[in-house]
Amino acid sequence: MMNFPLLLKTILYRANLVYPNQEIVTRTATGMKRYTYRHLARRAAQLAHALDRHGTPRGAHVASFAWNHDRHLELYYGVPCSGRVLHTVNIRLSAEQIVYTVNHAEDRILFIDEDLVPLIVPLAHRLPTVKTYVILTDEQSVDVPLPGAVGYEEFIAGLPNSYDYPELDENDPAILAYTSATTGEPKGVLYSHRGLYLHALTFMTGYFALDDHDVSMPIVPMFHVNAWGRPFCDLWSGAKIVLPGARPTSKDVADLMQTEGVTFSAGVPTVWMGMLQHVRQHLGDYDFSRVRMLISGGAALPESLVRAYQEELGVALYQGYGQTETSPVTFLGAPKQSIEALPMDEQLRYRTKTGLLIPGLEMRLIDAQGNQVEHDGTSRGELLLRGPWVLDKYYNNPDATAAALVDGWFKTGDIATIDEHGYLQIVDRSKDLIKSGGEWISSVDVENLLMAHKDIVEAAVIGIPDPLWQERPLAVVVVRTGAKDVVTPDRLRDFLRDKVAKFWIPDAFSFVDEIPKTSVGKFSKKTLREQYQNGELPLRR
Amino acid sequence: MMNFPLLLKTILYRANLVYPNQEIVTRTATGMKRYTYRHLARRAAQLAHALDRHGTPRGAHVASFAWNHDRHLELYYGVPCSGRVLHTVNIRLSAEQIVYTVNHAEDRILFIDEDLVPLIVPLAHRLPTVKTYVILTDEQSVDVPLPGAVGYEEFIAGLPNSYDYPELDENDPAILAYTSATTGEPKGVLYSHRGLYLHALTFMTGYFALDDHDVSMPIVPMFHVNAWGRPFCDLWSGAKIVLPGARPTSKDVADLMQTEGVTFSAGVPTVWMGMLQHVRQHLGDYDFSRVRMLISGGAALPESLVRAYQEELGVALYQGYGQTETSPVTFLGAPKQSIEALPMDEQLRYRTKTGLLIPGLEMRLIDAQGNQVEHDGTSRGELLLRGPWVLDKYYNNPDATAAALVDGWFKTGDIATIDEHGYLQIVDRSKDLIKSGGEWISSVDVENLLMAHKDIVEAAVIGIPDPLWQERPLAVVVVRTGAKDVVTPDRLRDFLRDKVAKFWIPDAFSFVDEIPKTSVGKFSKKTLREQYQNGELPLRR
Repeated sequence: MMNFPLLLKTILYRANLVYPNQEIVTRTATGMKRYTYRHLARRAAQLAHALDRHGTPRGAHVASFAWNHDRHLELYYGVPCSGRVLHTVNIRLSAEQIVYTVNHAEDRILFIDEDLVPLIVPLAHRLPTVKTYVILTDEQSVDVPLPGAVGYEEFIAGLPNSYDYPELDENDPAILAYTSATTGEPKGVLYSHRGLYLHALTFMTGYFALDDHDVSMPIVPMFHVNAWGRPFCDLWSGAKIVLPGARPTSKDVADLMQTEGVTFSAGVPTVWMGMLQHVRQHLGDYDFSRVRMLISGGAALPESLVRAYQEELGVALYQGYGQTETSPVTFLGAPKQSIEALPMDEQLRYRTKTGLLIPGLEMRLIDAQGNQVEHDGTSRGELLLRGPWVLDKYYNNPDATAAALVDGWFKTGDIATIDEHGYLQIVDRSKDLIKSGGEWISSVDVENLLMAHKDIVEAAVIGIPDPLWQERPLAVVVVRTGAKDVVTPDRLRDFLRDKVAKFWIPDAFSFVDEIPKTSVGKFSKKTLREQYQNGELPLRR
Repeated sequence: MMNFPLLLKTILYRANLVYPNQEIVTRTATGMKRYTYRHLARRAAQLAHALDRHGTPRGAHVASFAWNHDRHLELYYGVPCSGRVLHTVNIRLSAEQIVYTVNHAEDRILFIDEDLVPLIVPLAHRLPTVKTYVILTDEQSVDVPLPGAVGYEEFIAGLPNSYDYPELDENDPAILAYTSATTGEPKGVLYSHRGLYLHALTFMTGYFALDDHDVSMPIVPMFHVNAWGRPFCDLWSGAKIVLPGARPTSKDVADLMQTEGVTFSAGVPTVWMGMLQHVRQHLGDYDFSRVRMLISGGAALPESLVRAYQEELGVALYQGYGQTETSPVTFLGAPKQSIEALPMDEQLRYRTKTGLLIPGLEMRLIDAQGNQVEHDGTSRGELLLRGPWVLDKYYNNPDATAAALVDGWFKTGDIATIDEHGYLQIVDRSKDLIKSGGEWISSVDVENLLMAHKDIVEAAVIGIPDPLWQERPLAVVVVRTGAKDVVTPDRLRDFLRDKVAKFWIPDAFSFVDEIPKTSVGKFSKKTLREQYQNGELPLRR
């Protein structure tokens, strides 16, 4: 067979050939902006020419600092297809982390949303490699206090709208992202054309396959692990694409879903919690009958949320799982035919498991001794993965690489079980396990049980030092407004009593207004541990 | 990203991990035989060990000569995953072609169905490389007049049911097939692991995506271009697989579809014509409401057939297109969202077009001067293709290779148009075009129009020499029983009058009982031309 490389330009080629008139819609400050795949292809070509004119060599890194919108999508194609690497800077990183990652990546250009300019202005003098700032705005000329600033429209103006993309090596890098780094410095992951191609194609198969009848809205940010691959999957599927723009609120998400006829969307659990709360307050206003499925990822999906979507909104909410190091998708919570025969309560048990290994990957679950554990749904082991879109090394970081890999397998750092149906269940981060009296306590299990309580909105469980047991669980919970007086530690302990082993029940509770989140919306247990150490958490026993 | 090769063993790995209890059902002479993915994986492993025990080296060719059944599926995995190459001999080749292909491939073992043994016995002395015949039968011991004959069950007996498959190079060959050769000797096409992996994964996306809720029945034979990839797609999707066994009749196909709850099937148009005729005679007996879609390929799909399936059976019949040289699928007749908005008559125009280019390939339509033609639905050009599952060379056949490739593109030999929606329409084989007075006449167009006539069952049009016009069309037709007296050349000419240009209307007709077919069920125009030259066709003007 032909030696035909797996390149991202292949996606753009077919999108323009087969679905030139398909729509791409972006929510902007001034209303909905609409164009087509054909326009995307033309403007990506202009961008590629603009990088040539700018003198950006092949292999150079250019960065984006932007929300989900049409120009960001153009960057996703114009930059890698022409042989450069797009570094998608996470706008929610701390100032120090932004400086670290841009310098570590040696980015030459920063493409930045106009409303995000104030975040970068105070840092610009510490970004010596960035010589040009391109402002992502409709305006032709811009006036921002950044050196070498130019408007995106001016940057690409007057250039041809087709481009003869190079025949790259499929292993050439296309996109660079950094982990959100709950500990230590962010680590860079370089995605190759081949890896992104195979990841996208695989995510387009089976239960989650979209086609041009679909309308896909990635809520998950393009600055977060390539929006889980949606910029590639959606365009290749021919789906109408809805991009939610800057700072979408829960109302924006629900409104877009309704007005644009969204059939498929993807976001973190907090997005779906937020939308549910909004919709509950405006039930008559929404009809989600066009929604085929939603995917939640980035954190465990509480059963109560899946049930609420199914029963209150009639919408199927499924779980995906992955990491920055795995491009990211590795497991999807597809409902097997054998599971759908079960009563809804039992189905939900499987629907809230982490999911089934997607095609193309291999997995191992190993115990502390390095032996593979049984696939019995209860034996726990650390999850190892390998496959064409799994990290083989961090970018310029041999120490982190050495720590992450073992015998050619990537150590996910997650503790999991796998059952006889093939469903994986992440039970904890290996570093979030609570070690109590020589046994493991899964903080995630306890959190999920607490969040199933009707009066609990959020719950995070951490291990705190204990002289007798080494560690004991502390549950930090947010109680529903109106229930603050009735929820007590003893009532919560009673609620848990018949659901977990006795030694799993938290000794201490902390009632707070909000649980601190990481830059990607996960519960920040690192922050909770610091708050506990600093005596900032009110404790009740 | 990891240097993780794209190998067929990855499919078997996931099938056994995620869907071990999914069913594989085979129709046999003694009833339905059922087992599961887990059994398939175990027996494929035993087969791999058996090839080791037999001393078959890595890279060696072993052949199959078999219908679609469980053991043939085991060969599809056990042979290539362990590093050997499976040559799937087309059982419908002529004796001379069988001898030619087995010798050309230098096959060491021939795995053969018991009922096909009589076809091979008279040829065995001319197959010097074949030292072992393995008989695909339930029996433990066999008694057939072939040298070194052994039963399959004996061949694999007593061996371990797991196998540590080698980490092959993804470009290593996995399967060898020969073209059915309407002209000249059959030509060998070697499919790599990488090509088959990518072809299967791509055919699992979008509109034609199956999952484990599906029941797939490949009617297209495994000896014909890998049953269009179904052995890989179906197992990877987790679908229940129904294998129709030896010589399925139209009744068998219809019965299996109903009793096994088939949701997806694939076959040549003559299969679907046959099943339709059977079902029309037993309408009350069948309920095809579970069927999601059928795919037809290998020859153009008449609009009348698509309409009959839709209107009489409520079943969607779509077209696929490809060739032995392209693994085979390159275009699929998916209904675009923009097409489904049209009235049914207009929809059918698109539904019977050849289809949309599938992801991962690139195409060109070039005219006689080598220029790309417009995508206007009428400009005709020869179709060129390239991609990861497109031939780069024939097996040990440099002359044929040189003739088939131009500037890195594969010449399909098909003349096509492409419209503004991206739908390709094959209008003819370049060698089947009728050149009349300096213009092209599409034999396929005229055939399809004739087959839309209520009294015409089959029609094939060939060019015959003409002193004035160079060539003129001759239509060879099969008239419906009961209408033989009323169908005349003049009435057919009247029927065509307002549908095609005047010079396209055949000067001569030949009324026959059956149109000769090739080994894969296509109209054999080669045979018709020979019959015409030999004066064997009755002509009416």
